[in-house]
Amino acid sequence: MVSTSDGKKNNIMTMSWHMLLDFTPVLACSIGPWDYSYKALKKTGECVLCVGGADIMETVVDIGNCSGKDVDKFEKFSITAKKAEKVKAPLIEECIFNLECKVLEEHVFGNDWNVFVLEGVSAWHNTQRKEQRAFHAKGDGTFFVDGDHIDLRNRMTRWQDVI
Amino acid sequence: MVSTSDGKKNNIMTMSWHMLLDFTPVLACSIGPWDYSYKALKKTGECVLCVGGADIMETVVDIGNCSGKDVDKFEKFSITAKKAEKVKAPLIEECIFNLECKVLEEHVFGNDWNVFVLEGVSAWHNTQRKEQRAFHAKGDGTFFVDGDHIDLRNRMTRWQDVI
Repeated sequence: MVSTSDGKKNNIMTMSWHMLLDFTPVLACSIGPWDYSYKALKKTGECVLCVGGADIMETVVDIGNCSGKDVDKFEKFSITAKKAEKVKAPLIEECIFNLECKVLEEHVFGNDWNVFVLEGVSAWHNTQRKEQRAFHAKGDGTFFVDGDHIDLRNRMTRWQDVI
Repeated sequence: MVSTSDGKKNNIMTMSWHMLLDFTPVLACSIGPWDYSYKALKKTGECVLCVGGADIMETVVDIGNCSGKDVDKFEKFSITAKKAEKVKAPLIEECIFNLECKVLEEHVFGNDWNVFVLEGVSAWHNTQRKEQRAFHAKGDGTFFVDGDHIDLRNRMTRWQDVI
């Protein structure tokens, strides 16, 4: 999810489409004028990426199926905003991870595909919560939960040796 | 993975960083001049995205840890190139899914972050292979396999009703 604050009100949206761009905390995500959060993100250049656990999957989906223009999502879904360190957008206490981000760049691909490049400036991990598995959108309202964790670090060569 | 053909030779690379951009088959991915496949992708404007199963995870990782400038990866890893329908880059028989793609656009974020926008033009699903679980990079040579599949389609409102 993505939390924002326009200075008056906190808001949060659900976002499936994102990817890393570097081995440093730089990532791209698809947020556009069709999202109510777009204005606050554009105005402040700040947000928090909030990774929910598999135990709050329904809430995360429901947050993505209504708009901050109609409701106060924090109240409606009983989620807890916490003060972030380096941005004005709030952390979400119920999440596994919170990544405070600043906007580096925006680009519109084609006529319609808005992409923001974000840089993580502070990261939080809620190690106290029991469910540590995240989940991922497959599309069309279906999801999968993190399965087996596989460590293949011994197969990785140094990046510099490959390219 | 991403397969390409420069007209003389097929090549394949492993790619972790990609995301959807639309409800149609349009997606963004991070491929840049540091990748040997970049030249062929840029020249032909075509590639195939090939989704390996959890049973060939080591091969997929190893394919990402050597360069097509040094080796014929198809020979080295005994993978099978098959003729695609709409692009010259090959399908990979051992994969679960193959998505033939054409480049729509390229953009460089900052000075370093190359992003291609691709459009899927033909899709293949190998329903015969037993292992249908994909896997995903967590970073630093660690991965997770698809876990439980969750269907929350009944919670999805029509997109038009939300925005």
